[in-house]
Amino acid sequence: MTDIHSLTRKLQRQNDSKIILCVSDGLGGLPLEPLGKTELETAHTPNMDALAQRGVTGLSVPVLPGIAPGSGPGHLGLFGYDPLKYEIGRGVLEALGIDFDLGPDDVAIRGNFCTVDTNGWITDRRAGRIGSDVGAELCEKLDRIAIPGVEVFVRHVREYRLVIVFRAADLGSEVDDTDPQQTGVAPVPPRANNEASRRTADVCRKFLAQAADILQNDAPANLLTMRGIAKRPAIPAFEEVYGTRAAAIAVYPMYRGLARLVGMEVLEAGNSLADQMACLVMHWDEYDFFFVHFKYTDSTGEDGNFEGKVKRIEDLDAAIPRMTELNPTVFILTGDHSTPARMRSHSGHPVPTLLVAENCRFDGSNAFGESICRAGELGQFESKYLMLQALAHAGRLEKYGA
Amino acid sequence: MTDIHSLTRKLQRQNDSKIILCVSDGLGGLPLEPLGKTELETAHTPNMDALAQRGVTGLSVPVLPGIAPGSGPGHLGLFGYDPLKYEIGRGVLEALGIDFDLGPDDVAIRGNFCTVDTNGWITDRRAGRIGSDVGAELCEKLDRIAIPGVEVFVRHVREYRLVIVFRAADLGSEVDDTDPQQTGVAPVPPRANNEASRRTADVCRKFLAQAADILQNDAPANLLTMRGIAKRPAIPAFEEVYGTRAAAIAVYPMYRGLARLVGMEVLEAGNSLADQMACLVMHWDEYDFFFVHFKYTDSTGEDGNFEGKVKRIEDLDAAIPRMTELNPTVFILTGDHSTPARMRSHSGHPVPTLLVAENCRFDGSNAFGESICRAGELGQFESKYLMLQALAHAGRLEKYGA
Repeated sequence: MTDIHSLTRKLQRQNDSKIILCVSDGLGGLPLEPLGKTELETAHTPNMDALAQRGVTGLSVPVLPGIAPGSGPGHLGLFGYDPLKYEIGRGVLEALGIDFDLGPDDVAIRGNFCTVDTNGWITDRRAGRIGSDVGAELCEKLDRIAIPGVEVFVRHVREYRLVIVFRAADLGSEVDDTDPQQTGVAPVPPRANNEASRRTADVCRKFLAQAADILQNDAPANLLTMRGIAKRPAIPAFEEVYGTRAAAIAVYPMYRGLARLVGMEVLEAGNSLADQMACLVMHWDEYDFFFVHFKYTDSTGEDGNFEGKVKRIEDLDAAIPRMTELNPTVFILTGDHSTPARMRSHSGHPVPTLLVAENCRFDGSNAFGESICRAGELGQFESKYLMLQALAHAGRLEKYGA
Repeated sequence: MTDIHSLTRKLQRQNDSKIILCVSDGLGGLPLEPLGKTELETAHTPNMDALAQRGVTGLSVPVLPGIAPGSGPGHLGLFGYDPLKYEIGRGVLEALGIDFDLGPDDVAIRGNFCTVDTNGWITDRRAGRIGSDVGAELCEKLDRIAIPGVEVFVRHVREYRLVIVFRAADLGSEVDDTDPQQTGVAPVPPRANNEASRRTADVCRKFLAQAADILQNDAPANLLTMRGIAKRPAIPAFEEVYGTRAAAIAVYPMYRGLARLVGMEVLEAGNSLADQMACLVMHWDEYDFFFVHFKYTDSTGEDGNFEGKVKRIEDLDAAIPRMTELNPTVFILTGDHSTPARMRSHSGHPVPTLLVAENCRFDGSNAFGESICRAGELGQFESKYLMLQALAHAGRLEKYGA
């Protein structure tokens, strides 16, 4: 059994190298027609192509062949954490997504406002998709709920979605969803699946009872269901396992949250790629490792917008010189998964990846795209090994064994 | 630790897709001369080549690099069962090979008729390779052996080979072979290697004592040895782990048995590829997944018959349109291992594989053969992951993680 981190703890070496890991979310794609070009191959990317010529390419498998990952496992893999070992529950991801600073004792829950009739049966699992203004107001009311011995936080996400966090020592998180996934029935009462979670289920029941009182005149949002009840996984810190001081430069909260989960410092990244580049330049001397996240290749893919994704890739390409002119020891460009516009969803296709460093073994890649990556020196590899390549090419790993 | 099935249980999704897994036994080969073409590359295969153009290719590693698998592990891998985790004993495989319907309590044993002299020492470990008619008659006699508390089945395989099955609750199978692997010595008495197998060893001794009486006048086959004493592995059912109703269409009993072992329905497949295709068409609406087995690429390889194997590949190629005109969502063509005619045996060379589906990322493969597969999008992969690709391309897997 390969434990990457027991290896990196032993082999880590300090030097002055700098590593940039630039993640273009959902980067991998598919052609629209047989034998056509993918989004990345269609895009005009002179900077990426020049890097491919100076570096090596390959295809990254986020979890296992064919498996389409969510953002959580996709990023954990790139950070070198086995996504099958460290699972991130929906409640935790949702809390990370609104920049909520989850502690190790916190139980996070994704809530959905719903509508119940006078029998208590659900008539609408999304409360008529109430507007965000309404949802925010209701969350403020619920945030006043008090349960003895437990700190309660209620935060609005968007429309009918919210996050509930219970903070207290020794709360388990093995509690089933209360959302029955259908209408015409009552919500499922919170049920614990182990002894350690009985108190948590009890806290959930108390919360829901108070919420029912508070919301009784707020139809269509006169109740809520709970899903993805979870605690953050016990995950070793990036600096401890790799010996690098790492910083995250991400516009969207969920990716800041994922970075925080592995112990990266989260920098003020602004709202645009230009802001992110300025942030990178400003903090260049302070860290060894920079995670730069670019969201829009995923969102355009999810929208089924092939041309839009091409355009976003070109936007990213234009920003690349700002990163490379800092002369990072290692520069990596990859994605956390594929999001082919044709499929309008995350997919299990392997992800084009490039790595540039002084000591990489040039592989004849003359551009950056799926077809070229297929023949690259990095081969087809599980994404959890990418950090080893990053550290190795930065001279940050000792020889293994004598 | 990656447990494929704990993942597929969680992610499985139902839809109307259909998957065909066509296994050409021992498909992979070797050229006769350096820089020559393999059997598959020599064959004229317009249908396979057209599929390669519409799909993706790769090389499947049945167990681990270099390891030549038997039929059991070869097929288990293709069915997504780690062949290093699930071991199929020789006795079990032999029983499957004669269509014996092994139950979970059955201990199966491969028997060899042998010749012993008046001292009880073995003079011929294969009883002069008696004819199948003689062997069958002796097995009928032995089938009458009665042992209290145990059901006994004796079935003829071929020539000097037979299968013995003991059926009773709580029989262990850790009993050593009795074949001493040499002549001039007595057979080894059955010896249990754990407490749970002591009764089994005792049953073996009783069986052998009665057999010695029955066969005393049947020289050269006046005794038998026992090998590969085993029970079928506890293996989760295909439908449970993948959520697909699966059917096997195989002419040879061993492959039907392997399919039955993982819980596939075994259909009446007839005696020829034409019969198998008719069977597939007839049952098309009843199942989600079809395993179609073609034996003759292996048997010609084992015979060292390069031209014969080429011809058999061409026979299979001609049958392919019958499968593809059914419009399967995913069509896979692969082998359970390589059987190069040049080696006259199974080998550890990776196996050419092609997968065709609407959402596959075309990889420029323009024909089906080992050299082209080497550069294909599927890469070089452990065969146990092929089912993930099949399910993913059929839209039968949810996203992993949030």
